[in-house]
Amino acid sequence: MLSRRSKEGRPGAATPASHLVDELVVANRILFDQGVVDGFGHVSVRSDRTPQRFLLSRSMAPGLVGAGDIMEFDLEGNALDARDRAVYLERFIHSEIYKSRADVRAVVHSHSPSVIPFGVTDVPLRPLFHICGFLGAGAAIFEIRDFAGSATDMLVRDAALGAALARTLGDKPVALMRGHGSVAVGDSLRQAVFRAVYTEVNARLQADAMRLGPINFLTAEEAARAAATNDALLARPWDLWRRKAMTGSEA
Amino acid sequence: MLSRRSKEGRPGAATPASHLVDELVVANRILFDQGVVDGFGHVSVRSDRTPQRFLLSRSMAPGLVGAGDIMEFDLEGNALDARDRAVYLERFIHSEIYKSRADVRAVVHSHSPSVIPFGVTDVPLRPLFHICGFLGAGAAIFEIRDFAGSATDMLVRDAALGAALARTLGDKPVALMRGHGSVAVGDSLRQAVFRAVYTEVNARLQADAMRLGPINFLTAEEAARAAATNDALLARPWDLWRRKAMTGSEA
Amino acid sequence: MLSRRSKEGRPGAATPASHLVDELVVANRILFDQGVVDGFGHVSVRSDRTPQRFLLSRSMAPGLVGAGDIMEFDLEGNALDARDRAVYLERFIHSEIYKSRADVRAVVHSHSPSVIPFGVTDVPLRPLFHICGFLGAGAAIFEIRDFAGSATDMLVRDAALGAALARTLGDKPVALMRGHGSVAVGDSLRQAVFRAVYTEVNARLQADAMRLGPINFLTAEEAARAAATNDALLARPWDLWRRKAMTGSEA
Amino acid sequence: MLSRRSKEGRPGAATPASHLVDELVVANRILFDQGVVDGFGHVSVRSDRTPQRFLLSRSMAPGLVGAGDIMEFDLEGNALDARDRAVYLERFIHSEIYKSRADVRAVVHSHSPSVIPFGVTDVPLRPLFHICGFLGAGAAIFEIRDFAGSATDMLVRDAALGAALARTLGDKPVALMRGHGSVAVGDSLRQAVFRAVYTEVNARLQADAMRLGPINFLTAEEAARAAATNDALLARPWDLWRRKAMTGSEA
Repeated sequence: MLSRRSKEGRPGAATPASHLVDELVVANRILFDQGVVDGFGHVSVRSDRTPQRFLLSRSMAPGLVGAGDIMEFDLEGNALDARDRAVYLERFIHSEIYKSRADVRAVVHSHSPSVIPFGVTDVPLRPLFHICGFLGAGAAIFEIRDFAGSATDMLVRDAALGAALARTLGDKPVALMRGHGSVAVGDSLRQAVFRAVYTEVNARLQADAMRLGPINFLTAEEAARAAATNDALLARPWDLWRRKAMTGSEA
Repeated sequence: MLSRRSKEGRPGAATPASHLVDELVVANRILFDQGVVDGFGHVSVRSDRTPQRFLLSRSMAPGLVGAGDIMEFDLEGNALDARDRAVYLERFIHSEIYKSRADVRAVVHSHSPSVIPFGVTDVPLRPLFHICGFLGAGAAIFEIRDFAGSATDMLVRDAALGAALARTLGDKPVALMRGHGSVAVGDSLRQAVFRAVYTEVNARLQADAMRLGPINFLTAEEAARAAATNDALLARPWDLWRRKAMTGSEA
Repeated sequence: MLSRRSKEGRPGAATPASHLVDELVVANRILFDQGVVDGFGHVSVRSDRTPQRFLLSRSMAPGLVGAGDIMEFDLEGNALDARDRAVYLERFIHSEIYKSRADVRAVVHSHSPSVIPFGVTDVPLRPLFHICGFLGAGAAIFEIRDFAGSATDMLVRDAALGAALARTLGDKPVALMRGHGSVAVGDSLRQAVFRAVYTEVNARLQADAMRLGPINFLTAEEAARAAATNDALLARPWDLWRRKAMTGSEA
Repeated sequence: MLSRRSKEGRPGAATPASHLVDELVVANRILFDQGVVDGFGHVSVRSDRTPQRFLLSRSMAPGLVGAGDIMEFDLEGNALDARDRAVYLERFIHSEIYKSRADVRAVVHSHSPSVIPFGVTDVPLRPLFHICGFLGAGAAIFEIRDFAGSATDMLVRDAALGAALARTLGDKPVALMRGHGSVAVGDSLRQAVFRAVYTEVNARLQADAMRLGPINFLTAEEAARAAATNDALLARPWDLWRRKAMTGSEA
């Protein structure tokens, strides 16, 4: 807490509410506990003080993030108060999505394992059951080769690539990144985390169902209506995941 | 315990025995610990005071349910003493099955992951080994589109849909719900929980066996006889599951 | 401990050494912790006092077994000192194998999940890697229908069925039971537990490898030589499994 | 600690720094916690005092290894101070790779489960996502039959077989061992452990993606560039894995 308090005196720094920092810590821990991220991956939230800023951990494993690790960034991906803390190479995933999507208030980037196969094959990810209705809008595939050429380490390591990813995402909730992972967005941390967790669940179930035979997917209308219903129920899984992820933690 | 005691004075409320409340809490925790439910899903038990009532948690993740969260409902799905507690949208799954099936004393609704693929493909779920003999009676598939039309969020959110699900279930122990999940019933909490857990196990094993080749399923007679034997052994897994699920819990 | 001490005074009862009782408790806990048994399944060891007796838990989930639950049986499946303790319906699996196989000193019966599909399809279980060399001798399939007819609950519930299973097992280390589970035997508890755990591992790997393409299995000679080597290394996994299974246990 | 201190006085023994011993203990625990090794498998590190020596545990399950179990070996596979400690039969995997590969400072040998199927079928293991870019160099397959003939227990139990494995490995990061397991090497413990963990992850994802359809793998250039980037990020997963593996441990 000392580190955050020490920032409060700085001129020009619109310090985010501590509850938002705490919620972002919980989101990091949940995503690890639910198997969406491992040592890699990151989650951010738009500042509640100004839409031109967002919060993101310093470069570290999400499962170990504490309040003192949360940094504030502007929409160019610059840290406002980096001090000696390393930043994620791919912070531009977040900055460019916030820049292009005013409705988005939280972004999850992960290599969640069941989703990766859908990014490297021709099978579209589609909603198998109502909880994943948000996938009814489809999941765009980002082919970094189209923007970075062949000489790439696959990372979204600058604003131009971040902007290309944001354009691919368009107004969808999820984008798959070929040979890399995926990104899920939401109008709150809870919605983005919910979508990241259940994109992984849907991918696993869809792969399982495909080996049984042709799949009777949700229709577009079923998916849209189910998604609207689920958005009112986000607290239910969040409370469970938070309890499970934070047990034994002092954070 | 205070909350339950405070109810005892109310006129007209046939308060269920506290042991039944406690057993329902254990059932909630077991279903979460065994991976049958996650943040969603619910389990109910018919009242031991009157067959026209049943017990069900307030709207929350089953893994967090405690005795103070258990509410009593009538067979129209009305909470008798809701106070400020939210109720599950899909309580009509329970009320309508209790209404149509006098033999049923407990109902589990879940999105257990291995079962969902069998609800969205044409592969019948059939018993692969003796523990799942109860599946010899077959598992009906509930297609909500047939009853709610195309404008549905997939939820069994009123009595009419609950009644349609109950008719689809008929006298079977399990019904699959297309694009949603499944329901398992029993003549006791232990039997319904046993069936919910082992429906998930059978679905996973059947999918695994299908990729090896044609499956030698239990015959109808083998299934029926095995189910009868297993019904006398329900305490064995229940004791294990309870111990595992309640360890470290004060509930 | 009182219960065991109280038996010592009984005339005619050759009380097994307490270290063997303790090792059988550990075997029960390991098999649960390693996912070989769940609420069902059982493990026995031949008495170190007389080859005409064996030790087996009372009827309960293996994961909860303590020293006070261990009972002694003769080779007809009769409990020597049952008191009020229920016995496993399928104790004849153990008694008949001990009767027919003088070399066997321990028997595991389980429904381990990856093995069941190999018992209900035509795919022979074969050793994929050296740790499972013991499978080079092949795994017999026991079709209970051939012995009990069509009116069966699938259980080996009498001496005749136990004897049929023992004949099917022959001199092999493992037999698959169609629509039921499997049995693994060994010349010690450690060897039988090792074989039960790694039969499950081999089944999972073989199913996984089959979907890649034709499998280059161990030759009979490789399997036999590997098995001989592994038999000298049983303490290594046992020590790990025991530590993991008994942590936090007072048993 | 006493055991290590007692060695310091011995003439001719270049005692490795205690931090390297501690790091090797952590590597053992991580590999177990991450599911790369079970009761079998081992990890070594080249001495920081002399490149002609390496550190390896006595023969035991990696998940139980403590500082007092770490032994020093020369490049012929001889223990310098064995006392009464048993040595791994396959220490020649390590000694011969260190002999032939001056760049290698750590070696992991495991039977990690998703990798084994790729060693017994014709499907080449290839990098599916950027984290596994190191696999762009390909993974050699070691067929022990070509060197030991048909009379083998599959173990690399002498220097000649170790040398054959080292030749098969060549300058690659990973070799698959048919019917046995695999070996991953690195220029540090962290890199070798990273490669062992993510070889397992890639194998599982590749098998999953294959059942969806043809896979769009990383190109050689993408793989090489991604691997270079990842090599600068090894501390991130290591810190997570260490925390997770060592929690509750006094080692």
